[in-house]
Amino acid sequence: MLPVDLLVAPRWLVPIEPAGAVLEHHALIVDAGRIVACAPLDMALSQYQPRQRLDLPHHAVLPGFVNAHTHAAMSLLRGIADDLPLMDWLRDHIWPAEGAHVSPPFCADGVRLAFAEMIRSGTTCVNDMYFFPDTTARVAVEVGLRVTVGLIALDFPTAWARDADEYLHKGLELHDAFKHTPLVRTIFAPHAPYTVSDAPLLKIRKYANELGIGIHMHVHETAGEVAMAVEATGKRPWQRLRDLELLGPDFIAVHMTQLSDEEIAQAAEYGVHVVHCPESNLKLASGFAPVGRLLKAGVNVALGTDGAASNNDLDLLGEMRSAALLAKAVAGDPQTLPAARALQMATLDGARALGLEHEIGSLTAGKSADFIAIDLSAAPTQPVYNVLSQLVYAASREQVTDVWVAGRALMRDRMLLTLDETAALSRAAEWRQKIKP
Amino acid sequence: MLPVDLLVAPRWLVPIEPAGAVLEHHALIVDAGRIVACAPLDMALSQYQPRQRLDLPHHAVLPGFVNAHTHAAMSLLRGIADDLPLMDWLRDHIWPAEGAHVSPPFCADGVRLAFAEMIRSGTTCVNDMYFFPDTTARVAVEVGLRVTVGLIALDFPTAWARDADEYLHKGLELHDAFKHTPLVRTIFAPHAPYTVSDAPLLKIRKYANELGIGIHMHVHETAGEVAMAVEATGKRPWQRLRDLELLGPDFIAVHMTQLSDEEIAQAAEYGVHVVHCPESNLKLASGFAPVGRLLKAGVNVALGTDGAASNNDLDLLGEMRSAALLAKAVAGDPQTLPAARALQMATLDGARALGLEHEIGSLTAGKSADFIAIDLSAAPTQPVYNVLSQLVYAASREQVTDVWVAGRALMRDRMLLTLDETAALSRAAEWRQKIKP
Repeated sequence: MLPVDLLVAPRWLVPIEPAGAVLEHHALIVDAGRIVACAPLDMALSQYQPRQRLDLPHHAVLPGFVNAHTHAAMSLLRGIADDLPLMDWLRDHIWPAEGAHVSPPFCADGVRLAFAEMIRSGTTCVNDMYFFPDTTARVAVEVGLRVTVGLIALDFPTAWARDADEYLHKGLELHDAFKHTPLVRTIFAPHAPYTVSDAPLLKIRKYANELGIGIHMHVHETAGEVAMAVEATGKRPWQRLRDLELLGPDFIAVHMTQLSDEEIAQAAEYGVHVVHCPESNLKLASGFAPVGRLLKAGVNVALGTDGAASNNDLDLLGEMRSAALLAKAVAGDPQTLPAARALQMATLDGARALGLEHEIGSLTAGKSADFIAIDLSAAPTQPVYNVLSQLVYAASREQVTDVWVAGRALMRDRMLLTLDETAALSRAAEWRQKIKP
Repeated sequence: MLPVDLLVAPRWLVPIEPAGAVLEHHALIVDAGRIVACAPLDMALSQYQPRQRLDLPHHAVLPGFVNAHTHAAMSLLRGIADDLPLMDWLRDHIWPAEGAHVSPPFCADGVRLAFAEMIRSGTTCVNDMYFFPDTTARVAVEVGLRVTVGLIALDFPTAWARDADEYLHKGLELHDAFKHTPLVRTIFAPHAPYTVSDAPLLKIRKYANELGIGIHMHVHETAGEVAMAVEATGKRPWQRLRDLELLGPDFIAVHMTQLSDEEIAQAAEYGVHVVHCPESNLKLASGFAPVGRLLKAGVNVALGTDGAASNNDLDLLGEMRSAALLAKAVAGDPQTLPAARALQMATLDGARALGLEHEIGSLTAGKSADFIAIDLSAAPTQPVYNVLSQLVYAASREQVTDVWVAGRALMRDRMLLTLDETAALSRAAEWRQKIKP
């Protein structure tokens, strides 16, 4: 009998690989933070001696969700302004509030509030883009959540940096500081084509190549921004990024609601990853990302919630449902993005976008033990003919009961174990008074 | 001091009328099942002597949601088939399963499962269209939920009736049987233009006029059904209904994804009510209802979940969020269907569609005490800058804590008081084994 740390025995095991599989009478075996096996329960019980056994008789166990695009600290601005066009919303509400309040304490408190919500809804890996990414990384280490933090870059000064050089310099410093921190990765995060000029983009490409880290950028979020670029330069932003040699398999393009067939073919050709943020795109009326066409072309599509100021939640389970529903209507075909593929998008394809597909995204021996449990015994997910259908089309964030990252429990039976939620909520209430008394 | 049954003191009171209002330090006063007043708390405490006081310090209290189109008993078929075109899904999966299993016990058990989910997500009034509407009505009386049951009509035989005459006869019998039952109303429910021929439709219009009850029908759900009708008859179904004089302020048209400007103008002119089912329309790729254009034309638009086999939940709170997000993207304008209007659509405009706007839909003195409480203290709905934004864009069904209909508590602090949920879940599990062993 092989001693191991943990045996998880759920009603259903959804490993994501092989695609569409739902295993019954199986156990997940974990040791030293890694998955040892997904094995038939009988066999597992005869081969392993677990120090801890977790029985989940009404639950599906699956890999944790990957939120491939968010601005976590913006949770403190949730609902501060809604029902406005993107540019009015940014210029009249979000940027002024950020200008007045964004600071390391704002980010620490906002990220803690966001992480409470994210863990509760089953997210185990977050690709964040915001100011003070060092703070985000520190909170992630404290909480035990897996993050990729964006080395943000803009042309204009903010509380985080004065100019393009300082953004880059601080980013590289952060990259070095967290190089050996297991759960933290970094990625260049030039905000968008309309906020970052050519010179810093060229430098970012150069450093990305040298350091072997990726690039994460908003691209073609709205028709307006594409039209403005065409008017000003004669070029669509995508074409400009292509000319600057930014596109490649280490490039994550977020939103992408405006795409010609040629641009879709190019995204596939360059191996660019697309992060789809359906709820933010709907709420800001940014447009409909052509998810069906992207998938048909072979482009990897991941999912993001975007920030809580434009969604207004950070619930990747709900985002997966919205994506699965919306893709069908946009494609005019109810067979687009079926349940199994939506689950893969929310897990393994998110991992792929972040270059983490060998580490997370499926319950495969050798990968990190990042997994969650969802209780399907409530009325809205009964009866169960099809587990994948229930997970995608009917389950809610509150049905997530257990969340583990690298073999460490962040939530057990809906109790957060590594984050003081009461304190986070009370700090959020204080910020609310300060920001809009 | 006036003795009254109940004083509810929530953190926020959202009465829906006046539009957009959020009252703080206010109380809802209830007596004999009716709303006596929404009054400032100080004044209420000095004027009324409540037999019961309900303090809800983290909650918004608002009118219960009106689910203006559903097939409740289909909860037992949730997830039996997904990711298919409407006609394949109906012909190859839903109709065969219904043919084999639909019966009074199936409907009673399905309706109980559905009502558990609906009450838990804040629905207090349901417009149902399904077989054995007498069973649905009886379960509603037993549980204390407000219903309008559809007197279903089809051209072909089902377990409920053999032919058009029997559908009509049984419907009229049911109408008489429940005429004096306070929470039950009836409505004619010819299924759809493609399943009901002219003769029964003309009879239904005649009886609707005589009895003063409305008509509830699927109309223009998909482009395909419109095209088929045009090919077969030269007429769009809407035109046919108009020629048959079915359209009027007592007519509820469900789905309506395919509409010309002229048809929208006619809907306004006739006072037809539209029920928008965004999630079902997305999932079946039926199309996008032009909600922004309908509202601009002055058409009353209500919300429905449709059945759990095509949604796959019965959560009107979530449906309201989907509607508010989707309407903006479809209109290309983020100012379409703002939060306050979405809340009105889910409550008062639903009541209007059912001809119940003098009885329910807002917290107005004299109306029935049908109200719910939603706890906003959880991380996903903090901090609170804007209560309406949190309710529409961030709250989830599990944050609904209390549900009252006609002054009777159906749920208190997330405990169902009038429905044996354990029994309902166990019956659902039995049906699952019977239907797909």
